Amino acid sequence: MAKPVKVDELTTFCQLVLRGFGADAETARDCTDSMMHGSIHGVDSHGVRLLGHYARGLKGGRLNKTPQIQFKRTRAGTGLLDGDNAQGARATYAAIDHACTLAGEAGIGAVGITRSSHFGPAGAYALRAAQRGMLALVTCNSDSFVRLHDGAERFHGTNPISVACPAPGNPWLLDMATSAVPFNRVELYRSTGTPLPDGVASDENGTDVTDPNLSAMLAPLGGMFGFKGAALGGVAELFSAVLTGMKLSPDIDPMGGPDFSTPRGMGAFVAVLDPAAFAGAELVQAGITRYLELLRTSPAQQGRTVMAPGDREWAVALERRKNGISLDPVTADSFSELARALNLKPVV
Amino acid sequence: MAKPVKVDELTTFCQLVLRGFGADAETARDCTDSMMHGSIHGVDSHGVRLLGHYARGLKGGRLNKTPQIQFKRTRAGTGLLDGDNAQGARATYAAIDHACTLAGEAGIGAVGITRSSHFGPAGAYALRAAQRGMLALVTCNSDSFVRLHDGAERFHGTNPISVACPAPGNPWLLDMATSAVPFNRVELYRSTGTPLPDGVASDENGTDVTDPNLSAMLAPLGGMFGFKGAALGGVAELFSAVLTGMKLSPDIDPMGGPDFSTPRGMGAFVAVLDPAAFAGAELVQAGITRYLELLRTSPAQQGRTVMAPGDREWAVALERRKNGISLDPVTADSFSELARALNLKPVV
Repeated sequence: MAKPVKVDELTTFCQLVLRGFGADAETARDCTDSMMHGSIHGVDSHGVRLLGHYARGLKGGRLNKTPQIQFKRTRAGTGLLDGDNAQGARATYAAIDHACTLAGEAGIGAVGITRSSHFGPAGAYALRAAQRGMLALVTCNSDSFVRLHDGAERFHGTNPISVACPAPGNPWLLDMATSAVPFNRVELYRSTGTPLPDGVASDENGTDVTDPNLSAMLAPLGGMFGFKGAALGGVAELFSAVLTGMKLSPDIDPMGGPDFSTPRGMGAFVAVLDPAAFAGAELVQAGITRYLELLRTSPAQQGRTVMAPGDREWAVALERRKNGISLDPVTADSFSELARALNLKPVV
Repeated sequence: MAKPVKVDELTTFCQLVLRGFGADAETARDCTDSMMHGSIHGVDSHGVRLLGHYARGLKGGRLNKTPQIQFKRTRAGTGLLDGDNAQGARATYAAIDHACTLAGEAGIGAVGITRSSHFGPAGAYALRAAQRGMLALVTCNSDSFVRLHDGAERFHGTNPISVACPAPGNPWLLDMATSAVPFNRVELYRSTGTPLPDGVASDENGTDVTDPNLSAMLAPLGGMFGFKGAALGGVAELFSAVLTGMKLSPDIDPMGGPDFSTPRGMGAFVAVLDPAAFAGAELVQAGITRYLELLRTSPAQQGRTVMAPGDREWAVALERRKNGISLDPVTADSFSELARALNLKPVV
């Protein structure tokens, strides 16, 4: 690992790179914010390691450098946001802004996102709504990578679901793939030569394997109860693709190319709820406070700790905001190349 | 197993019993509809075996026999429904009706339910919205039965989440507990003396056990990734209890008594979305049709079949509507007692 880079320095570098590849100011800002959400909170799979990927999409034409985002309110509580092939964070932060406005008026606001692209960490968007005192649900689908329950081909994407609820201090924040593990976990096991846990990956025939080198697809969450995980992946399809008229996972071009010139036509979905339209902000605050207190003081198994969703992430964020973020070697190399290509001061 | 009872006969019997214990016509109708949903679709844990339980709640005063349900629209897309301590199906079907009306106007309708009780199968309510051409999400919490990830006490209820989407023929319908298995599965293993699968139940110290007789609590969905299942249980708490100001799972009196006179003060949550406010009913119909076709023709593992959420249930329903429903011995005995107590013609 290279020497840790300060959060501010990394943020500036990401923005300069994206601007250097022609992204407008809003795209550079939002794309950077989403990656920094990942890197700050220890969700490194969706952190700044994606910078080179997004730069390639901007350069190739997959991503519109200067998207004209269009929001159409369809009813009091709903709308459609046409991303104009923007980088996914640009479209999704805009959708969250509109959904918060709708929720402030109609009590709940749901926005279907069309013509978007890979949006990185779902939790970044749900968190933004929670920071404004709202509950949020965010989901998207993605290119096929996860088999169905009893299935033998890549079908759903890792299709994340994120839910956030405002709380004193840090929000309650769930951001989960509907597969058992993300694929980068498999890659980690490969690089360390460690066998995988049971029931997380399968070979080309859908047979579960523990040899990470034989792993050709991920298993849905739940092991022998994987019909639940597969159905949750389906929930992401219904809200992100079916409701918006966008592409189903098996129809989405692979994230990794080789085609980096064609927009991917991805959907996504955000919903935001205003506590004031339900029990009221004070009662909701009292409820989440008691819930988190009961949860965090609940007896743990010997040698274990019980945590609320997000607690691990807030701890990592505290440390990384103080000490900086260490880049893995592949990302560090990619950053050096990007700096050279754009004649920027290197951060590593 | 006793001789199968025809659906119509069983429906009439349930209504007569509930009316016999003083329930008003709406309560008898809705409570019966929810139990019959379970029994017809093979969700027997939430089927007519609950009749005796609800009769006891009506008799004891836990359930209001003649609830004055009050709906208050709080904003264009939201409302609160005060169940007046109704049986849960009575309150939840009413909430779905209101949410569908809200969604027809505002594009989305979310209703928080207060002062309700055990509502049986979550899928019954989501299905009703889907039969009206709407997408729906339904959830509730319940008394503590499931440990947290790494936890050593009963914390969340089995906290179901149901999602439905209209489709040609039968809807796409997910109705899942956020525990790995329902407790009645553990009871089934006890009665047959079979060891439990790994990672579904724990002893009093939170240590996973496969001996069903040592099982004191359920594990969250996900096995070693149980933090996801526990967080999904948390989603049910947030929407059903925190947002509505109702009781958290650890605060809810046990379903099984001994107190059957005090109302349980449970919350629940329903949200309904109108496809016409997103991509439009036609495009959404085309999307779900293609999704289900891709899914049902996706290659399966050797000797397995890939199914969409709900497919198993529709197959069971077809058979049971034709041949009737067989009651387990405990339920058959309870039905005989209820018939004797109310001087009704017995169905078994």
